[in-house]
Amino acid sequence: MNSHRSSLGTLLHHVHVSGPLSRAALAARMGVNRSTILALTSELVAAGLVREEHPRGTTGAAGRPSLVVRPESERVYVLAFDVAVDRLTAARVGLGARVLDSRAAPRPRAGVDLDAVVGTLAGLGRDLYREAPRGSVCMGIGASYTGMIRPVDGMVRYGPEMGWVDQAFGTELERSLALGLPVAVGNEAHLGALAEYARGAGVGEPDLIYLHGDVGVGGGILVGGKLLGGEGGYGCEVGHMLVNPVDGRPCLCGSRGCLEAEVGEYALLAAAGRPPGTIGRQAVRSAVRDPGAAAAVAEIGDWLGIGVANLINLFNPGVVIFGGMLQDIYAAAAPHVAARIAQHAMPVSRERARLRLAGLGDDSTLIGAAELGFTPLLRDPLMGIERNAS
Amino acid sequence: MNSHRSSLGTLLHHVHVSGPLSRAALAARMGVNRSTILALTSELVAAGLVREEHPRGTTGAAGRPSLVVRPESERVYVLAFDVAVDRLTAARVGLGARVLDSRAAPRPRAGVDLDAVVGTLAGLGRDLYREAPRGSVCMGIGASYTGMIRPVDGMVRYGPEMGWVDQAFGTELERSLALGLPVAVGNEAHLGALAEYARGAGVGEPDLIYLHGDVGVGGGILVGGKLLGGEGGYGCEVGHMLVNPVDGRPCLCGSRGCLEAEVGEYALLAAAGRPPGTIGRQAVRSAVRDPGAAAAVAEIGDWLGIGVANLINLFNPGVVIFGGMLQDIYAAAAPHVAARIAQHAMPVSRERARLRLAGLGDDSTLIGAAELGFTPLLRDPLMGIERNAS
Repeated sequence: MNSHRSSLGTLLHHVHVSGPLSRAALAARMGVNRSTILALTSELVAAGLVREEHPRGTTGAAGRPSLVVRPESERVYVLAFDVAVDRLTAARVGLGARVLDSRAAPRPRAGVDLDAVVGTLAGLGRDLYREAPRGSVCMGIGASYTGMIRPVDGMVRYGPEMGWVDQAFGTELERSLALGLPVAVGNEAHLGALAEYARGAGVGEPDLIYLHGDVGVGGGILVGGKLLGGEGGYGCEVGHMLVNPVDGRPCLCGSRGCLEAEVGEYALLAAAGRPPGTIGRQAVRSAVRDPGAAAAVAEIGDWLGIGVANLINLFNPGVVIFGGMLQDIYAAAAPHVAARIAQHAMPVSRERARLRLAGLGDDSTLIGAAELGFTPLLRDPLMGIERNAS
Repeated sequence: MNSHRSSLGTLLHHVHVSGPLSRAALAARMGVNRSTILALTSELVAAGLVREEHPRGTTGAAGRPSLVVRPESERVYVLAFDVAVDRLTAARVGLGARVLDSRAAPRPRAGVDLDAVVGTLAGLGRDLYREAPRGSVCMGIGASYTGMIRPVDGMVRYGPEMGWVDQAFGTELERSLALGLPVAVGNEAHLGALAEYARGAGVGEPDLIYLHGDVGVGGGILVGGKLLGGEGGYGCEVGHMLVNPVDGRPCLCGSRGCLEAEVGEYALLAAAGRPPGTIGRQAVRSAVRDPGAAAAVAEIGDWLGIGVANLINLFNPGVVIFGGMLQDIYAAAAPHVAARIAQHAMPVSRERARLRLAGLGDDSTLIGAAELGFTPLLRDPLMGIERNAS
């Protein structure tokens, strides 16, 4: 790929992340002159990826306001998939990360095999694809899954929540969708971290920790603006950090006392006295608001604070972001979390670490999956056109 | 600095890390032609930093063997300092990281203030400088200290072992040495990690964890070949990862149950029944070899294994290296460490993580300090010459 195509990708990336930008702003951000911006923009307009228009409120005003370059968010989209404990979600997400349409299905709890999950997701995705407005074009597919994902092919190496080991999730979803597009798969918390960094509570924070609560607790950790992968891409397994080796609760991984065993949904709902089998976001929301469950919330907050303190000591982050159902838990247990951090994190590190709720709310992982789907287009915007024309 | 000087630095770096290299090997590594290598080498020879010679064993042989470029290790050196629990060490370390000369003094245990530590180290350093052979030249100064160090000026922000908070260690050592050279200070485990990556048990392993045992436990973690700093350079505080929140031992940081409280020298020597006040490397070596202390060694190994398992889950490293007195502990307790890792680390991560003793033995942190001292010279080899000539 030549540097011209790479410049097209850079320009498209700017409007994808920041929304409409004037030619002048783009020239400044990219460090090139305005005639270069003009040429790049013309190509992207011809490719149907952006359009140019007068900025809102200036039409008809005197003078010549700089045109703004706006992503074709209604026309250019990806399919994004998200697998959560109680829901399977598919969405059509437009350039600029706008959710244009979405479908969700409850996820059966028992006997969840690969075919059932893939079949449901593929059905939702094909519906969205078929019902997309005429003229719109699907440029990629990304999926978020709670487990250890092999980056190269979306293989679920280990997903204790469903008991999956070496399940070819990405390959099967791609085959079942049959849209002629590859499916990129990422760990949900990794994707949430990248989405929060791009357009959520972590903008401008290259040293960022995102914690995602579902049945388990996932982590996405950015070090110097890059996702911590490690030797094989399996890093960030925050949920299996052992925090309670002496009398820890059993964990789905087979060990005891892992962070996710102490702060996950099962722990909260059991400590709050909910009947066995109760699960899901609504149950968590109800529990954290129940005055009778205050002791359970405090206990969960203590363990969460210990986990976060350890991460602050290890990573000296600028921000720690709580996503998924940890939004509800952190909102309810913040004083307990803060007290443990004060007790266990080194002062010079904890002073700088801000704690935040996910800026994208419940969409962090879904938007992260969409970003994964947009990656090839943003790397080479004309690749999509060639595909489209073929 | 122009690209020519940068190329000089790159060539010097190659022979510093790898030892003598032929012009042909240098040309291949740097991706330039041999005439460029010839020109660069000539300048470095003129600057007194390298010399060219026939490879060993080939002198007088038929044909024209490629000359090798050899660092002037006897002539060009840095001063390196290391502060350990029971010893203060200074060394003259030649280009290529050869320890040319060293001095050590016992470190008094009680009432250790900044002036006493700096005074002793500066005295050792000035002795080494004065006694260096005629014609040798000191190109930099690096120091390793056990604490949280502000990168910009070597300020010890937090050093619980000596009770130091915001002590201007680097600045004071520089003033006391009065050699007209800046003193660069780094955390001992950070430096140990970089040294092991450059020339120890971690060569070729960009995702590396180095654990250094002294009174405390320090960590140096490389992510993609770069030291994990975090927002302010205070990351990698492995020693204060809380592993035993229920009945943990008191830690020097004021908390309880930190990794270093469970596996540090105090924990080992107390569990092994040594009299209070016993400390130092010899005491550790004797304890781990004492059959009567087997239960203590097993217990320490369990806690160390839990800490390493957590790090494997978080970082998916290619190698975990044990340095300082953790060399002795790991050598004695390896089966206990391995059992805990098998129990608590995710299979896909633990399968790939090899466990190793420090390749540089007891010199990892000292060599790391020397590397810090060489950094300006390797960045711009002619800067040293200009300084030298002034």
